[in-house]
Amino acid sequence: MQKTSISESVIRRLPRYYRFLSALERIGQERISSKELASQLGLTASQIRQDLNCFGEFGQQGYGYNISALRKQLKIIIGLEKKRSAIIVGAGNLGKVIAANIDFESFGFCLSGIFDIDHEICGKEIAGFTVKHMSELLSFCQREKPFVAVLCIPQEAAQETADTLIALGIKGFWNFSHCDLNADPEITQVENVHLGDSLMMLSYRVTKNNK
Amino acid sequence: MQKTSISESVIRRLPRYYRFLSALERIGQERISSKELASQLGLTASQIRQDLNCFGEFGQQGYGYNISALRKQLKIIIGLEKKRSAIIVGAGNLGKVIAANIDFESFGFCLSGIFDIDHEICGKEIAGFTVKHMSELLSFCQREKPFVAVLCIPQEAAQETADTLIALGIKGFWNFSHCDLNADPEITQVENVHLGDSLMMLSYRVTKNNK
Repeated sequence: MQKTSISESVIRRLPRYYRFLSALERIGQERISSKELASQLGLTASQIRQDLNCFGEFGQQGYGYNISALRKQLKIIIGLEKKRSAIIVGAGNLGKVIAANIDFESFGFCLSGIFDIDHEICGKEIAGFTVKHMSELLSFCQREKPFVAVLCIPQEAAQETADTLIALGIKGFWNFSHCDLNADPEITQVENVHLGDSLMMLSYRVTKNNK
Repeated sequence: MQKTSISESVIRRLPRYYRFLSALERIGQERISSKELASQLGLTASQIRQDLNCFGEFGQQGYGYNISALRKQLKIIIGLEKKRSAIIVGAGNLGKVIAANIDFESFGFCLSGIFDIDHEICGKEIAGFTVKHMSELLSFCQREKPFVAVLCIPQEAAQETADTLIALGIKGFWNFSHCDLNADPEITQVENVHLGDSLMMLSYRVTKNNK
């Protein structure tokens, strides 16, 4: 059973565990000790046991973890077995790359539509979808009830568009719009992607390492 | 003076502080208390004080932080005042989006070249650069001494290409290749970008919130 108030840093490690277990399963490995898992992931065995204990009882003293079983349970915990409808809002370069390169079905979603405000872009095909105009959003949402929206629009338009989408029933945003969206966390989940933060981390590390 | 062994989660918050202070400076605000800063960032005042204490003495009892001074110091700590040469390796859709949309100079780098292995892509212009063939990498690196490489190549080619680049003097990777690179952390810094992990976090949160 899942306990409440699990720390953000524990939650942030879940995808990494899932990815790593998936890779082990692909090469046919059946089990792994928390010590081995820790050493491969650059963590401690006790941290891994503590992390996983937040979500249930996994592993067995002296045996370790059954890779396929643990992966399957993490898949359910993360919600990856769902196929929640997702739309992309903003079909510029970034929207196109995401539509073409992200395998939404591996991450608990299925792409159901792509929208843009630019009449030049609307009507074009991207990743098998005909880009629709934003004016069709209301009728689309009433009909298809998309669950999450990927925001690939300029910062200036992001909050207003998000507010509209929340009113239309969107429950989560994958936000690439270079800003932190305001939304009631009881109703709407926001995952802000700040690629610049990631590049700053690289800058910090190379700076620290090359003084 | 910078202390050693600052925790990863503290370091990960630095870009957010920097971004937020930059926004406050843009609107002309001069100072902020740790309490106000905390409330705006969803942290506690004591956490902010502890985080910043890892890097030096900032702020003043009863006055708070001077926004412009703190931003300037964080800029130096993160290394953003540098202009380290960066190359993009892989000029497919993602490489193109990064070249066109990331303002490297804001993040301590300047873009100095774009490379691809595909003869169809080489010679084309992207973001003001003529894409060079990978066979020119050696002479380019000897001449221009790029500091970091943005890897936008398929997973299968990532480690081998990274090893080549390390041998050519590359000190850091911004890695979009869907894998965690192996590199000696004493010599080479790696920032792996896993967009899928971010989408999994959204899946986890909407799942937890919509049971």
